[in-house]
Amino acid sequence: MVSIKDVAKYANVSVATVSRVLNNKDTVSEGTEKIVKEAIEALNYRPNLVARTLYKKRSSMIGLILPDITNPFFPALARAIEDKALSYGFTVILCNADGNAKKEMDYIKSLEQKYIDGFIISTSQLEVENYDQFDFPVVALDRFIKNEIPTVMANNEEGAFKATKHLMEVNCKLIAHVRGPSGVGPADDREKGFLKAVKESTIKYTIVETDYDLYTAEKVAYQLLQNNPEIDGIFAGSDLIAAGVMRAANHVGLLIPHDLQIVGFDGIQLGKMLSPSLTTIEQPIYEMGAMAVELLYKQIEKLDLEKLHYKFSTKLIKGETTKNTRGFINE
Amino acid sequence: MVSIKDVAKYANVSVATVSRVLNNKDTVSEGTEKIVKEAIEALNYRPNLVARTLYKKRSSMIGLILPDITNPFFPALARAIEDKALSYGFTVILCNADGNAKKEMDYIKSLEQKYIDGFIISTSQLEVENYDQFDFPVVALDRFIKNEIPTVMANNEEGAFKATKHLMEVNCKLIAHVRGPSGVGPADDREKGFLKAVKESTIKYTIVETDYDLYTAEKVAYQLLQNNPEIDGIFAGSDLIAAGVMRAANHVGLLIPHDLQIVGFDGIQLGKMLSPSLTTIEQPIYEMGAMAVELLYKQIEKLDLEKLHYKFSTKLIKGETTKNTRGFINE
Repeated sequence: MVSIKDVAKYANVSVATVSRVLNNKDTVSEGTEKIVKEAIEALNYRPNLVARTLYKKRSSMIGLILPDITNPFFPALARAIEDKALSYGFTVILCNADGNAKKEMDYIKSLEQKYIDGFIISTSQLEVENYDQFDFPVVALDRFIKNEIPTVMANNEEGAFKATKHLMEVNCKLIAHVRGPSGVGPADDREKGFLKAVKESTIKYTIVETDYDLYTAEKVAYQLLQNNPEIDGIFAGSDLIAAGVMRAANHVGLLIPHDLQIVGFDGIQLGKMLSPSLTTIEQPIYEMGAMAVELLYKQIEKLDLEKLHYKFSTKLIKGETTKNTRGFINE
Repeated sequence: MVSIKDVAKYANVSVATVSRVLNNKDTVSEGTEKIVKEAIEALNYRPNLVARTLYKKRSSMIGLILPDITNPFFPALARAIEDKALSYGFTVILCNADGNAKKEMDYIKSLEQKYIDGFIISTSQLEVENYDQFDFPVVALDRFIKNEIPTVMANNEEGAFKATKHLMEVNCKLIAHVRGPSGVGPADDREKGFLKAVKESTIKYTIVETDYDLYTAEKVAYQLLQNNPEIDGIFAGSDLIAAGVMRAANHVGLLIPHDLQIVGFDGIQLGKMLSPSLTTIEQPIYEMGAMAVELLYKQIEKLDLEKLHYKFSTKLIKGETTKNTRGFINE
């Protein structure tokens, strides 16, 4: 690799002069600056970023901690974050925490030692006290960590309320909510929205819990549908869970949407591949990712944050897993 | 952060002594070494990895360059690589090249300056000459770059041959291959396998090309099926393409597998979520990722590679998008 010494030699100036040019100091004459810059170009010199990191204690890298990269919601989110981060000159380091708090802490500690500029964290498995030790800024995405940490999430409660209301509008009589794990913020908030909607009416309902995993969701839904044949509507806690519910419904022999109507949550591409296509609650994934990067960038640059906590509105996307409401509305 | 000075003070030795212990030099007495190690533990001191990187020109980071993180084949691959890399003490930096050669080079250059230990590259958009400039080891995964660069891939030609033979066994009369983009290695190899199979017989066939993108695949397949209603078998170049083909078949009004039989390629979880479930060619994704990490690790440690090029066998996974062959075989 070309060194700063090579540049100095080529330009016939001192190493200190090259360094001053690199650091945009005013103490170099325009003529000298031009010569140095030509040498840099001629030799294709790239400043040693590791040395710069050591000096500035900045790496222009941000970490993104995801609970599970194979859950298709998170690649969509990662893509949004990466696009936005690049526009700020950040390289994104993806960390797949895999539901393992130790793995997550190992990532954080090892990247902290590389002067990572900050983290966007989409997990909630660390103790809140862990965050107090951190020397770098953090943004919580799709999770709430604590009041002092900027947060970006969808309005999960509102979205779940819309999903459940839709199932009631299409005339479901017994609605089940197949929710994500207890203690995971979005899953808890979606249950709240579900309960709010069902409790406004006299509709019968039940709630079961699964992991965010296709086969677990299928197993849970299979048992639910076997034991409760009168269930005719399911609000699934995510699109991936909805895919599991649909597999279970097929095995039980229920026709969708004739016998069983389903609404998911997320609005990822997966829903369009399912057959029938999934009615779901769409989160504005791209906008959420972009906002998370902006909030992290502002903290890194020590700029003011106008607001700490952002909740994005969701939207019902009508697919084929629920019946058309038109007839119902016209009745 | 605790510094080496703090450790020296606590242990009542010089900074140089602590440094010698950290670097496992023999010039420190056992007693002193013990005291220093106790101080390191008591203060929870973590050596400054950036400084170490500068000294050793090693970062314990490896880069993984993917063409598109939202194509579900690649998160599955990334997960495998990350698991294996962690067992070697490597942090994986995920780079989403997004079909953009400039973006890919920017990632490589910026990470090279951070003394990245090596790259696993799953794209093939750079000119082969680019690789000659690199100072770090590379493994090509799911792509061939050049003879000197270790390669891990599935036997795409053999897999495509199996897929096409299966469509012939289930009695298809006119088979279309909806292939990935020209110039992308696996897509070219799969076409070769397809051609080998159809040319061994007198079966009629046709080939069309799409991107690895759901909606493009759907559009291409829709036109194909509209213009050639006699097509009764499709070998899709990937599971994601197969999902697009299935959407197109639904829009055209073809029943799967009654009117149209489909085989995909990859064997990712997506195939199980499709309805009917996808018959596909399974790549051993986990083993391929693990082998790529092993080959990179051996290069980093300057160990001998027994072999440079690995081709993994594939397996036909029977789903519901093709008919059962039992009746056919018994005839």
